[in-house]
Amino acid sequence: MFNEEIRLQHPIRWAMVGGGRGSEIGYAHRTAAARDNQFQLVAGAFDIDPQRGRDFGSNLGLDPQRCYNDYKELFEQEAQRQDGIQAVSIATPNGTHYAITKAALKAGLHVICEKPITFTVAQAQELKEIARKGNRVLGVMYGYTGFPMIHQAREMIRQGDIGAVRVINMQFAHGFHNTEVEKNSPGAKWRMNPEVSGSAYVLGDVGTHVFYLSQLMAGLEVDELCCSRQSFVKSRAPLEDNAHVLMHYSNGAVGTLWASGINAGSMHQQKIRIVGETASIEWWDEYPNQLRYEVQGEPVGILERGMDYLYQQSEGVGSHRIGGGHAEGFFESWANIYHRFGMAMDAADRDDQATLANLWYPDVDAGIEGVRLLERCVESADNGCKWVKF
Amino acid sequence: MFNEEIRLQHPIRWAMVGGGRGSEIGYAHRTAAARDNQFQLVAGAFDIDPQRGRDFGSNLGLDPQRCYNDYKELFEQEAQRQDGIQAVSIATPNGTHYAITKAALKAGLHVICEKPITFTVAQAQELKEIARKGNRVLGVMYGYTGFPMIHQAREMIRQGDIGAVRVINMQFAHGFHNTEVEKNSPGAKWRMNPEVSGSAYVLGDVGTHVFYLSQLMAGLEVDELCCSRQSFVKSRAPLEDNAHVLMHYSNGAVGTLWASGINAGSMHQQKIRIVGETASIEWWDEYPNQLRYEVQGEPVGILERGMDYLYQQSEGVGSHRIGGGHAEGFFESWANIYHRFGMAMDAADRDDQATLANLWYPDVDAGIEGVRLLERCVESADNGCKWVKF
Amino acid sequence: MFNEEIRLQHPIRWAMVGGGRGSEIGYAHRTAAARDNQFQLVAGAFDIDPQRGRDFGSNLGLDPQRCYNDYKELFEQEAQRQDGIQAVSIATPNGTHYAITKAALKAGLHVICEKPITFTVAQAQELKEIARKGNRVLGVMYGYTGFPMIHQAREMIRQGDIGAVRVINMQFAHGFHNTEVEKNSPGAKWRMNPEVSGSAYVLGDVGTHVFYLSQLMAGLEVDELCCSRQSFVKSRAPLEDNAHVLMHYSNGAVGTLWASGINAGSMHQQKIRIVGETASIEWWDEYPNQLRYEVQGEPVGILERGMDYLYQQSEGVGSHRIGGGHAEGFFESWANIYHRFGMAMDAADRDDQATLANLWYPDVDAGIEGVRLLERCVESADNGCKWVKF
Amino acid sequence: MFNEEIRLQHPIRWAMVGGGRGSEIGYAHRTAAARDNQFQLVAGAFDIDPQRGRDFGSNLGLDPQRCYNDYKELFEQEAQRQDGIQAVSIATPNGTHYAITKAALKAGLHVICEKPITFTVAQAQELKEIARKGNRVLGVMYGYTGFPMIHQAREMIRQGDIGAVRVINMQFAHGFHNTEVEKNSPGAKWRMNPEVSGSAYVLGDVGTHVFYLSQLMAGLEVDELCCSRQSFVKSRAPLEDNAHVLMHYSNGAVGTLWASGINAGSMHQQKIRIVGETASIEWWDEYPNQLRYEVQGEPVGILERGMDYLYQQSEGVGSHRIGGGHAEGFFESWANIYHRFGMAMDAADRDDQATLANLWYPDVDAGIEGVRLLERCVESADNGCKWVKF
Repeated sequence: MFNEEIRLQHPIRWAMVGGGRGSEIGYAHRTAAARDNQFQLVAGAFDIDPQRGRDFGSNLGLDPQRCYNDYKELFEQEAQRQDGIQAVSIATPNGTHYAITKAALKAGLHVICEKPITFTVAQAQELKEIARKGNRVLGVMYGYTGFPMIHQAREMIRQGDIGAVRVINMQFAHGFHNTEVEKNSPGAKWRMNPEVSGSAYVLGDVGTHVFYLSQLMAGLEVDELCCSRQSFVKSRAPLEDNAHVLMHYSNGAVGTLWASGINAGSMHQQKIRIVGETASIEWWDEYPNQLRYEVQGEPVGILERGMDYLYQQSEGVGSHRIGGGHAEGFFESWANIYHRFGMAMDAADRDDQATLANLWYPDVDAGIEGVRLLERCVESADNGCKWVKF
Repeated sequence: MFNEEIRLQHPIRWAMVGGGRGSEIGYAHRTAAARDNQFQLVAGAFDIDPQRGRDFGSNLGLDPQRCYNDYKELFEQEAQRQDGIQAVSIATPNGTHYAITKAALKAGLHVICEKPITFTVAQAQELKEIARKGNRVLGVMYGYTGFPMIHQAREMIRQGDIGAVRVINMQFAHGFHNTEVEKNSPGAKWRMNPEVSGSAYVLGDVGTHVFYLSQLMAGLEVDELCCSRQSFVKSRAPLEDNAHVLMHYSNGAVGTLWASGINAGSMHQQKIRIVGETASIEWWDEYPNQLRYEVQGEPVGILERGMDYLYQQSEGVGSHRIGGGHAEGFFESWANIYHRFGMAMDAADRDDQATLANLWYPDVDAGIEGVRLLERCVESADNGCKWVKF
Repeated sequence: MFNEEIRLQHPIRWAMVGGGRGSEIGYAHRTAAARDNQFQLVAGAFDIDPQRGRDFGSNLGLDPQRCYNDYKELFEQEAQRQDGIQAVSIATPNGTHYAITKAALKAGLHVICEKPITFTVAQAQELKEIARKGNRVLGVMYGYTGFPMIHQAREMIRQGDIGAVRVINMQFAHGFHNTEVEKNSPGAKWRMNPEVSGSAYVLGDVGTHVFYLSQLMAGLEVDELCCSRQSFVKSRAPLEDNAHVLMHYSNGAVGTLWASGINAGSMHQQKIRIVGETASIEWWDEYPNQLRYEVQGEPVGILERGMDYLYQQSEGVGSHRIGGGHAEGFFESWANIYHRFGMAMDAADRDDQATLANLWYPDVDAGIEGVRLLERCVESADNGCKWVKF
Repeated sequence: MFNEEIRLQHPIRWAMVGGGRGSEIGYAHRTAAARDNQFQLVAGAFDIDPQRGRDFGSNLGLDPQRCYNDYKELFEQEAQRQDGIQAVSIATPNGTHYAITKAALKAGLHVICEKPITFTVAQAQELKEIARKGNRVLGVMYGYTGFPMIHQAREMIRQGDIGAVRVINMQFAHGFHNTEVEKNSPGAKWRMNPEVSGSAYVLGDVGTHVFYLSQLMAGLEVDELCCSRQSFVKSRAPLEDNAHVLMHYSNGAVGTLWASGINAGSMHQQKIRIVGETASIEWWDEYPNQLRYEVQGEPVGILERGMDYLYQQSEGVGSHRIGGGHAEGFFESWANIYHRFGMAMDAADRDDQATLANLWYPDVDAGIEGVRLLERCVESADNGCKWVKF
């Protein structure tokens, strides 16, 4: 169970780039960062419109002086303060992630970046190297990875509770973009623009989430894949609003991934099912407190968050904030991740490598694999859906 | 609602080949055929062991004289009786379907055959031609097609209730064969033997069911497909116990099919989801009285069998045998199909082409498409999972 | 698994009183009786309109001579035939059950009667005595008692799988009568008329079903109860369209029963939950192939019909007609009950008391307890909802 | 959607009494209060063991000087500070609520108290009067009332979407206390002690939650009730671990309430179903983002949190912190309530009666009704389960 008493002596001084007025994801970052007092928001460059960003930050109680015009000014000015920021979260459109992250790392900051962290694997690896050299934490915001039941599933697989993995079915297929909603939605609009969004839309926007969940839970290595993508709303081409991927893993397992924004009538439908030799597990982000555990030849079991029969690993740091039966949700997942980001940053600052070695959080490697998925899917899809090595 | 009073004056004199002692599917045929008094079981060649078949038939109340050693004797002897059989159902292992069906048609019988009707499309087309020339009904036992909610879904799509179809996700993925159960199960054993089962196992055994449901409901034309299949129980190679198929339809829609016998812990998991421009529908054979109807931007709707708000087409012949709320099941689906087989045979005997033209039942064309699916999937899978034209 | 080969040498010659044209329940009786060839419909008095009844019977293939004007003629005339009926099912409005059943038993027939078997406990006990003296089977059609999972639950409780029973929650609460539908529905109209329906409506029409399920599964003895009933559609008074009952069992357990016809938007909502010291079980008639088994401190388990892990008692006679995963439904439950009625009648005719002693079927005692429930509920409800001894 | 920019200029200086080390509910209060920066924890008397309480508070970052030995010292000392507390939350065992609340109000503080606010209605009314005279906010922590779908349901009923209410079924029935767990659980132990817990256990601990939800959603007036309660774990007598209540409302509607701690294998099972003339709604706290809406004669609808088709009232202050599809949970409900507490306190301090008049929060009247429920239930149950006026 969560223990409030274990906390950082001094919250990490923290800023945001992007995530200003009207951004749901900006709020998600802030409320998660603040949840366990490990971060204190002290500065920001919240908006492409500097004045609006300054108003916004001021309304949040920030010193207007520390609400900057852009990320460059933010990093420069804060670097000159005694009480300058130690970490920054980046919640801007995709196309800017690489440059801002690079600048932040070079400014000696820990960084939490929205995915995709870059447009290319090479860029992501470059950032990884910069972070490594500077001993900086570089986290990638895979916001569904903080749910306790994900870590229960991960441990079950590690413990052999389902046997060797044979099949992984992944999907994140919502219906909110079944028509050309981007006409009236700025938040959707940039996602459909390849220059801002990158070479893929739904594969990156939602597909990488569930793909990383599968990596986290089962840890298999993709050997090759085949992708078919479509732009059912024509104006979105070349970006896809629907995609299906087939994957062959190096251990002989097979995977499927369905990413979609045109799954009409559906909410998230982010589901993952992992089939092992003897049993399967299944998890659904809309009902995140439950995990199905299906042993062949036995009654189906439904595991509930917060119960004593779970592995301790599902407890993790920051996990299980209330007893079983109470619904935890999206914000607890984010808070759990930010909690770990904070622990990692603190450990890095103390050069506590032992803690870092044992502390999972969605890091730059997670980010790299996500970008690699996009690269390979686009390569496959744009070449007659051929099979490509991963 | 079902009307018992509309019935054939004289039930069709009917026999079975196969389906004897210990065959679940044999019972399914018999109880479905008897349900509405349209068929009367009068003869059979129930078993590869003639004496056991004769015992079995006698125990069912048949004249032992009409329990024959094999199908050849059955057709020959019955042809010489005034009260000889008019129709036969074939529930033998796959490899014998072609020969027995051909012999039955040549003997002037109506035929109901288990799927796959043949090993090759060419054979199936040959049978179709023989049936056509002889004015015989040739039905294929796709036993899930008689559920009223399937026909409700079909009519909804026809009426435009979901808009143009964009995505079809199909799966029939059970876990009963996650280990080498065929060692101790004769019913499983022949299914794993290519000479008896054909070039595919789960694709044919379960995959064709849900594929045909998709054809029935949405009526799209497959343009090309890509298939990956595995033998997770090694001894089953070259036959697959798991397969994933990607399909491109000629209208631009995309489809996926998961067929499996190693989906550990799962019962049937036969599900179909059809995504249209404005809405989606979803059906699951384990809960066949419900149909999800999800319109984008509206609350999800759950339609129930037997309710007035359904299209009349879901009523169909033999459908809805009891009011809403009561669970109908697998046997009602089969009975509804046999009811239609009986109507078709009666119409054919009366040369009532108008009735035949308007009467849907799973016919030889359904059988042909199933065989074509298997041919193409095997061709793809055995050639590096390449894309092949359908 | 169901074995077709075990069957009566000669099907029982059987008639119906009531259940003619337009009666859903009439079809349910006929298709259940015919399912396993244990009964053969040979005569009937199907309708209060004799000519319509005769037309109906003829259309079902009966000899019009054996389609009688009323039950008296039916019993008299058939008694004079060598091949006269041996058994009769009664599917008429409630107010006639007592007289017809009594006449049938006195004519030496086995009887299957719809519930409630009589208006008073005293009448029901009189019928029981007549049946006993005549060695006749007197079954009461509690049509939900044939589901295999009910018998699985019963055996689980017997085996101590949930510990001593503490709480039983019962409900059968549909919404089809939330408005004055009886204005246009003859089938609903008589149910609202106390002279035909008896002193209660929903308590008898649906409440007794789930009450008997509880008796069958848990076998507890009601000590006292308190009932509150309402006529939300005013014109139905004094008959209730909604009722709640609190029960104290003699072992200290407590029960609740909700019977309703005004539960707007609901289908059946026939559910029963039995809470024991260590675990609970829950069953729902709309999804009858599943049984929840919830052990405190363990993951919830979902048991599926047809699986090897079930008790053999759930197999019973006539149970499990197809493997797990396939949906069985309402009609299999009825067929299983009729199968047992047939076995009981055959045993009674052979005076095989050993078989009878071990053969469960819903008998006159089940009927008596249902009538007693109605008597006591009405007594309580009509006297200020006071507590009354059961 | 939640707007972070609208916030109090100065967070309310806030303390807690109780809720220290090991208290889940203490954390719930603190994380909810902190969520929107409307409260700042500055002091406390967290524990009956003063030193442990001081350690705890210090670990949370409080000035140890402001971690007091008991509530009396807390109120006295803080009253003497310029920056003393303005509000206090009370999370101590039941028996102390009255005295602490009274002292806090008399000290001029706003108060948020756990339920039951007192042991008697008279006491609660006394507190109400003190609060009224002092213009202090007195909130009662009904923590499930902040879920947006509760307010959606409330508005639907107000708008006539289900017609006049006929039946309300309430239950909060978990299984965690099916054995004598209080032997090893301090948190459970005091709940079983009448001197500390009051005259009822599960009725108060869980039953009042769902009862108040029903009051909030439907607003009906209870006329009379009948209660049966049991102590299945004998040592708990006279306190009940299971209770059933029947209620008659003044408008003719009927209600049932099941409160239990011995519902083995269940998590919360806090569910409420409200049946109206034309439709029903149903909500379940374990899946709080969904609301079933069942219109008679139409497909069942499932409403999802965050969607545009909801009433604006479900948006409320502090509601909907992220778009539909994302799971919100227990902590958002609490945060929404604390948000409203903060608004109310701010309005009271400004004597802004207009805002107060339009601002719903769970107030002392909610607390009074909960205490009244307990009084009446105990009166009924302990007098032969007789009917008593409410």
